[in-house]
Amino acid sequence: MRVSEIARLLGASMHGDAEREIRGVAALESAGPDDLTFAEGERGLERAATSRAGCILIAKDAPSTLTGKLASKTTIAVSHPKLALIRAADALRPAARPALGIHPTAVIGPEVQLAAGVSVGAYVVIERGVAVGAGTRLGAGVVLGEGVVVGAECVLHPRVVVYPQARIGNRVVLHAGAVIGSDGFGYVLAEGRYHKFPQLGQVIIEDDVEIGSNTTVDRGSLGTTLIGEGTKIDNLVQVAHNVKIGRHSVIAAQTGISGSAEIGNYVVLGGQVGIGEKARIEDQAAIGGQAGILPGKVVRKGSTVWGTPARPLAEFKKIFAHLSGLPALARKVEKVSRDDARRPP
Amino acid sequence: MRVSEIARLLGASMHGDAEREIRGVAALESAGPDDLTFAEGERGLERAATSRAGCILIAKDAPSTLTGKLASKTTIAVSHPKLALIRAADALRPAARPALGIHPTAVIGPEVQLAAGVSVGAYVVIERGVAVGAGTRLGAGVVLGEGVVVGAECVLHPRVVVYPQARIGNRVVLHAGAVIGSDGFGYVLAEGRYHKFPQLGQVIIEDDVEIGSNTTVDRGSLGTTLIGEGTKIDNLVQVAHNVKIGRHSVIAAQTGISGSAEIGNYVVLGGQVGIGEKARIEDQAAIGGQAGILPGKVVRKGSTVWGTPARPLAEFKKIFAHLSGLPALARKVEKVSRDDARRPP
Amino acid sequence: MRVSEIARLLGASMHGDAEREIRGVAALESAGPDDLTFAEGERGLERAATSRAGCILIAKDAPSTLTGKLASKTTIAVSHPKLALIRAADALRPAARPALGIHPTAVIGPEVQLAAGVSVGAYVVIERGVAVGAGTRLGAGVVLGEGVVVGAECVLHPRVVVYPQARIGNRVVLHAGAVIGSDGFGYVLAEGRYHKFPQLGQVIIEDDVEIGSNTTVDRGSLGTTLIGEGTKIDNLVQVAHNVKIGRHSVIAAQTGISGSAEIGNYVVLGGQVGIGEKARIEDQAAIGGQAGILPGKVVRKGSTVWGTPARPLAEFKKIFAHLSGLPALARKVEKVSRDDARRPP
Repeated sequence: MRVSEIARLLGASMHGDAEREIRGVAALESAGPDDLTFAEGERGLERAATSRAGCILIAKDAPSTLTGKLASKTTIAVSHPKLALIRAADALRPAARPALGIHPTAVIGPEVQLAAGVSVGAYVVIERGVAVGAGTRLGAGVVLGEGVVVGAECVLHPRVVVYPQARIGNRVVLHAGAVIGSDGFGYVLAEGRYHKFPQLGQVIIEDDVEIGSNTTVDRGSLGTTLIGEGTKIDNLVQVAHNVKIGRHSVIAAQTGISGSAEIGNYVVLGGQVGIGEKARIEDQAAIGGQAGILPGKVVRKGSTVWGTPARPLAEFKKIFAHLSGLPALARKVEKVSRDDARRPP
Repeated sequence: MRVSEIARLLGASMHGDAEREIRGVAALESAGPDDLTFAEGERGLERAATSRAGCILIAKDAPSTLTGKLASKTTIAVSHPKLALIRAADALRPAARPALGIHPTAVIGPEVQLAAGVSVGAYVVIERGVAVGAGTRLGAGVVLGEGVVVGAECVLHPRVVVYPQARIGNRVVLHAGAVIGSDGFGYVLAEGRYHKFPQLGQVIIEDDVEIGSNTTVDRGSLGTTLIGEGTKIDNLVQVAHNVKIGRHSVIAAQTGISGSAEIGNYVVLGGQVGIGEKARIEDQAAIGGQAGILPGKVVRKGSTVWGTPARPLAEFKKIFAHLSGLPALARKVEKVSRDDARRPP
Repeated sequence: MRVSEIARLLGASMHGDAEREIRGVAALESAGPDDLTFAEGERGLERAATSRAGCILIAKDAPSTLTGKLASKTTIAVSHPKLALIRAADALRPAARPALGIHPTAVIGPEVQLAAGVSVGAYVVIERGVAVGAGTRLGAGVVLGEGVVVGAECVLHPRVVVYPQARIGNRVVLHAGAVIGSDGFGYVLAEGRYHKFPQLGQVIIEDDVEIGSNTTVDRGSLGTTLIGEGTKIDNLVQVAHNVKIGRHSVIAAQTGISGSAEIGNYVVLGGQVGIGEKARIEDQAAIGGQAGILPGKVVRKGSTVWGTPARPLAEFKKIFAHLSGLPALARKVEKVSRDDARRPP
């Protein structure tokens, strides 16, 4: 695409070489004359001045003191450079590769429905009664258990395992090694041993969800584990039985969500967060990395918390600052207390 | 099964429609006229009054003020409703599915012994000298390394990998993606690089153990990693080399146990707990979620600890409560100290 | 090997039965008459006195009060017993097993280059344009995406997945279930939904790196994720997009490193550590287990930190010690403050 075409696509004005041909996107440092890149913030714009990029996306409200140094560059001024890069990258990407068809080594059980344009990789195993929607791609070694339903235009990377009966929406991306629908962790201790509670429930993953590598999502014990539309989950996350996650939430790597917890919409969970059983995280709440939410606790709508057990962020920070002074405080109390004891009451 | 048959099985008395046919178990909310469910606690019993379940298991010592509202329902009164549900679910479950035989795509090395009724899924790889006990099921893509021994009536879900020489007992369940017997993490730094310590030991998993999805268990470096009978381990847990875990312990998701640590019997570890090298957790101890036990520390029999480094739970809670007051405390000390300085000694 | 040969190999002096035949290495407790073992520290040397080992490696500077009890044993005195065991174990190990060749079930795409002596296990999938160096072993079910380059003498254990275009050096060991090169976790929230940032970068793993079971390493979003020479990574670790890790660093299990963080050379990260985005851990720094480093923070060269947010270790310990006294401190302040209020100003 020419720079002028990209500017038109973004509905933005450009500056510089309108005819320049752009073939891909790259980071500011490594971009070459064929590449589109973006620059944000003071430091980004400064580094942009020495970039070899063919075209640079910049914020249209960036101060001219910064953009002035880019006079010799080809730039497009947009309201959100990073988002504009995403849109341009989508347009630059070659048309979706043709469907790869069904690899002859795939093992496909009876009563399986594969819609048009499904790609099935080598050594994929699809059990009885599975349905896969149009254009979905199953990577090498994917295993779909009995009765699984996968929607259209999904990508399941190599070695994803989906246990029987799970339902996966459209445009869902599951990264390598993810396990969907394994048994929840529920036992009753009686007569000196743990008896396994029935793990017969379901897991439902709605449209446009992305799930990271080696993440595990258990199915409901009797009810359902639900991951709402548009929610994004990073690598090595644990989602336990009967958890409900809302729409458009973001969950960073290695976070664990215990059984029957509820996560609202537009929630942000940092990395390595722990959510106790039956806790409720309301819409738009944010939880800092490594924080721990006690079982049954409620984190209110829009609030930000941190620490274990978690507190409001401002309170956490204040306490944390005072902790540094704790040894000095103790010495001071010692002195005052000694003086106090010496004085007449 | 009819309700009367379930009551007889549980040795319990029933109330209501003895002839009603029950086909499965379900959660209180979703149970229909064919389903058995259970209700516990005040809230559970209240919600039971509006359940459509065919039969409800309730505690025989539940107060009649609560059970009175269930007069129009079919109920069975037992000493432990949740445990009774497990037992009834076992009885309701269709007889074990017939063995699936050995899939023609399985790759089976020389000197392998498969006992009667073993099921081997598609693309399973079994190396030289492996022995698998009667009735064990190996899911698609399972890999058993040279010399591995798996007992009877086990279930290995898809894509489990067992490294050479590991020994697995009877009725063990390994969930998808679990890795058993990988190399321990041991190196010696010399001349500017890390030299790998020999990882030649073994891993032994005793009867009735269950291990979650994508959990990793390293083999001993020179000795043995041991997981005792009846212990249950959740998803994404790390068990390092030479760890010994006793019988009937429960380990929640994402917990990590460092090399040569010892965990006793009937221990409960919360999620995301970290156990340092050579720490010892004695029988019946409980460790709260995200707590950290220092290397070499001992957590005494039956105690409950929390925090990093962990303290007795009561102490942790007391300190935690005082932390909120720390800023106010510091201000108070400031004032008293100022006054003290102004006064004659 | 005879004991005398091992002593010669180590350039060390021996005591006892020079002609004794040694066949393997074992732990002090389980070693038999054919085994070499090692004993370190006072306790180790005491236990050595009752060991059945054929030969014991001991420190040449161990006090004679301790080594005196080993007069009846066959010993070799070296400067570093554990390192000597590693060297002897390498020599005792049978010559590398012959290459296993290419299993007939392997699916190998076009333009793939396999160097001499490459072993390819059952059900391995190698996509178009992959290159694998001499003597490398690919375990059962390994998946190498398009254009991946793997060096010489590597071991990829069963079920490792390498996404397209990743570059892996020589003598790299990847344990079962590890995922290399999956998409980074980067989105832009606009118009109520998360838009995926392009994940088109690379991952480079240098020589002599070892990566544990089910660990995940994302590729760069536009740039590169880099793991430097000789670095060792344990199980279930998360390495996010654009992270740079230096040479000869050690990262324990379940640690998570956020996007664009930088880890220097000879760094030691304990288990379950969390490193925030763009944080920088300088050479030789050490971070205690479960510690959390805030986004953008710098941990200085050679320093040791602990806690979340992390502090210098000495400060953390001092504060931790004072926390125990916090309830008593508060009571003391209460008393002094009451007395203070009662006195004339």
